[in-house]
Amino acid sequence: MPLAEVDGEVPYMSLVLVPTAERREAGAGCVSVVGLGPGGPEWLTPEARSELAGADDVVGYRTYLDRVPARRGQRRHASDNRVEAERARHALELAAAGARVAVVSSGDPGIFAMASAVLEEYERGNGEYAGVDLRVIPGMSAMQAAAARVGAPLGHDFCVLSLSDILKPWEIVERRLRAAGEADLALALYNPASRNRREQLERALELLRQYRAPGTPVVVARSVGSACESVSVTTLAEVVPESVDMRTLVIVGSSTTRVLQGEPPRVYTPRRYP
Amino acid sequence: MPLAEVDGEVPYMSLVLVPTAERREAGAGCVSVVGLGPGGPEWLTPEARSELAGADDVVGYRTYLDRVPARRGQRRHASDNRVEAERARHALELAAAGARVAVVSSGDPGIFAMASAVLEEYERGNGEYAGVDLRVIPGMSAMQAAAARVGAPLGHDFCVLSLSDILKPWEIVERRLRAAGEADLALALYNPASRNRREQLERALELLRQYRAPGTPVVVARSVGSACESVSVTTLAEVVPESVDMRTLVIVGSSTTRVLQGEPPRVYTPRRYP
Repeated sequence: MPLAEVDGEVPYMSLVLVPTAERREAGAGCVSVVGLGPGGPEWLTPEARSELAGADDVVGYRTYLDRVPARRGQRRHASDNRVEAERARHALELAAAGARVAVVSSGDPGIFAMASAVLEEYERGNGEYAGVDLRVIPGMSAMQAAAARVGAPLGHDFCVLSLSDILKPWEIVERRLRAAGEADLALALYNPASRNRREQLERALELLRQYRAPGTPVVVARSVGSACESVSVTTLAEVVPESVDMRTLVIVGSSTTRVLQGEPPRVYTPRRYP
Repeated sequence: MPLAEVDGEVPYMSLVLVPTAERREAGAGCVSVVGLGPGGPEWLTPEARSELAGADDVVGYRTYLDRVPARRGQRRHASDNRVEAERARHALELAAAGARVAVVSSGDPGIFAMASAVLEEYERGNGEYAGVDLRVIPGMSAMQAAAARVGAPLGHDFCVLSLSDILKPWEIVERRLRAAGEADLALALYNPASRNRREQLERALELLRQYRAPGTPVVVARSVGSACESVSVTTLAEVVPESVDMRTLVIVGSSTTRVLQGEPPRVYTPRRYP
């Protein structure tokens, strides 16, 4: 309701939500690609929360939309997984028509998530969306949540790779794994497997075993922050690729990564090298 | 005050802060290494806020402590920069004596920050802190904030390196830069320079120029999220190392990273390779 219509009797404490609108140019709206973080609400930043609350339209993969608190008058556009380009275009079109749009993304939209997809469509539009104010609202990424649960396995230099060969040739994945292996970098592996991609992780581990000792710590983190979270600490020799699916993030230590046995075990990479 | 002592007349809305204590073993307390994010309160997660509110003692570098909302009865232990080990030991000792301690860290404590320092001291204690419940509360890291400001330069495979050679030999830094160069990984460079370390960044850029085109996008982000934030988009040929200090994060694109000219310019790495 407009502020002017608020009745004189206001309860002891009230929350007035003032949209930070009017950054818009005449006619064009804005798109915020908003990171929800990897799991529950404990990692949703105040910035992300405020962007979601201020949006006219929220666009996203159905499962992620379910994590956004409902607000009256806000339109929701749920889509299936793997239609990122379509979803991005839809958001840009709504914004070009004047709407304030939030595109929701799990984790950090800037790390293997929706921000690049939206920018790809923005560029493809060839000026069509020039008036749209496009912003990225960062979020906690899965590797950070997974690392925090066991200690600090990414506490020193590391490499962040997607094992998916859907959008890049497998030779590139191998070349990057070898580079990380040779340079003794810890690794955070996104998209290690899916229902149909079962061989990539086994091949990646085989390759890393050429560079790292069998006892190198490996963290297998599934659905961190959700109710079905599971995090286990194992080794490069013993990790079971069958336990890994598309909701899993895998961290492989460097030669200096240490495990402190205990309940729970602690894994960290020291600041000093070697 | 104990809940039982609350008077019958409670205002319309009250906030009751219930510490999530009693995860402690008898006698021993806990240490949470808490990430504040890179700048203002918009990136402080609810989890981090709650940990800070529940702490008996807050330990940290003076500048970061100033960012923690004050709470009556909470003890604060400010220290200078560069005494991470000492600070970590102090926190563990307080916890071993029964306190609930928060160690504050800028950014994500798990990425070139306090978590590894605390784990190093925990291990060095050789069982002395065995009863201490040690947890890491992730935070937004500087590379995410910097990337978000310009788009999604880290939207595909990338490498995260510290250019500091205080705790590792320069040869290791070079080896890792070469690996990233050869494998065509985008790079997020932490600690690119300080008052006394002025040559490292120039050497790193010189090395990367052997692998990347002069027009490769470079993002120079200083104090993102603070009042004196500055973010600029330049190229590998034109970046001015003199503009970089210890509060700066540098992102170097891969061969596929694109710049969309405009106000502001947009930088992103597509999901597809090549």
